[in-house]
Amino acid sequence: MVQPYELFYWPTIQGRGEFVRLALEEAGVEYVDVAREPGGMARMMAAMDGPDHPSFAPPFLKAGELTIGQTANILLYLGQRHGLAPGDDAGRLWVNQLQLTIADLVAETHDTHHPIATSLYYEDQRPEAKRRAADFIETRIPKFFDWFEGILGRPEPKDYLTGATLTYADLSLFQLIEGLRYAFPATMGRIDAGYPLMAALRDRVAKRPRIAAYLKSKRRVPFNEEGIFRHYPELEE
Amino acid sequence: MVQPYELFYWPTIQGRGEFVRLALEEAGVEYVDVAREPGGMARMMAAMDGPDHPSFAPPFLKAGELTIGQTANILLYLGQRHGLAPGDDAGRLWVNQLQLTIADLVAETHDTHHPIATSLYYEDQRPEAKRRAADFIETRIPKFFDWFEGILGRPEPKDYLTGATLTYADLSLFQLIEGLRYAFPATMGRIDAGYPLMAALRDRVAKRPRIAAYLKSKRRVPFNEEGIFRHYPELEE
Repeated sequence: MVQPYELFYWPTIQGRGEFVRLALEEAGVEYVDVAREPGGMARMMAAMDGPDHPSFAPPFLKAGELTIGQTANILLYLGQRHGLAPGDDAGRLWVNQLQLTIADLVAETHDTHHPIATSLYYEDQRPEAKRRAADFIETRIPKFFDWFEGILGRPEPKDYLTGATLTYADLSLFQLIEGLRYAFPATMGRIDAGYPLMAALRDRVAKRPRIAAYLKSKRRVPFNEEGIFRHYPELEE
Repeated sequence: MVQPYELFYWPTIQGRGEFVRLALEEAGVEYVDVAREPGGMARMMAAMDGPDHPSFAPPFLKAGELTIGQTANILLYLGQRHGLAPGDDAGRLWVNQLQLTIADLVAETHDTHHPIATSLYYEDQRPEAKRRAADFIETRIPKFFDWFEGILGRPEPKDYLTGATLTYADLSLFQLIEGLRYAFPATMGRIDAGYPLMAALRDRVAKRPRIAAYLKSKRRVPFNEEGIFRHYPELEE
């Protein structure tokens, strides 16, 4: 492709766009993070109302003539084009299943600070957030982590979710672990030793040359309290 | 395929499994709804712990050697095999994007009665449910419905989301509308006239011969207060 990809996502947060950014970075392809360019927010808002295949919400990706929305769908496309997914249908479906399961936990993480409404501030739903976060910490993180650790351990310990080769689902699992460590540091510190294969995968992804360079660059937006993974200490108490 | 498909899902609810059932029914293929057969629940629980590609949760589908989990992923597979999705990559990605957006609203619908924790009863989170449902009715249903109605209307009114031909996303949109009419009858009655293309699509799907036969059959589990779409009148007040 002659044109670089154009990624459309909120410019000040990692959010769901980060799962796409990590795939683009690991693929080593050229892309423009449109809304972070001058005038980019206006372009993004206009594109969302575009006539063809509008997206319900960012992120979405322009790839030549194509516009693709929904994070897992963008990754399905990029994975196939850039060697970040298996070449066979069965393998691709499995990676998509892994990605959708990661997406489920990402959505639940978001709702720990917004259990009532995304249209309200966190401060307007704090008691409910405390209740939801307590259950999230006690039942949801362990349930999902047990599942991922099991995938990594069976039939024998693997470097990545599907074996010796990285897929986009590994990049997303890295991001999920990073995000949860930021949002719930006490919890993650407490349970970390129970998930050695996930911790090793996280380290392995962080050390990949392109990912390591990206994480040190200004292209990586820092975690903050506007994104999906927010550190509100009271939610861990 | 010589073997019929095997669908694994909770036997007493429509839930997420219903999106798969509708696709199997419209495709006119043979399938076994495993957990509704004698001994089926035990088989489902055993399969979830199976060595290959276990699913985090039902539904999952056995198709010969393949086991596929995550609703949208199962539909991606079935759509391609049974003419319920476009034949080209761009078209398939678009239908997957539509499906994932439907899935987002389905998840939000679930959380209207379970805003705090799926591990708790509705009765233990009723005040929070009332708050979440109020926002869902006021901001979320209209936002999603505006988007779907827009897709159906542009560039000119269409029979189905992608044009003249039904895809699995149309079956899912039918189910979403049916579910919301069951769960929030007053709300849906009030706003229905604002979404004529969605209402027409719903009717069009309901009249398709295989779907009409299915809806009248015992294979269709009735809506109830154990599934995703629950009618709790107090949530509309």
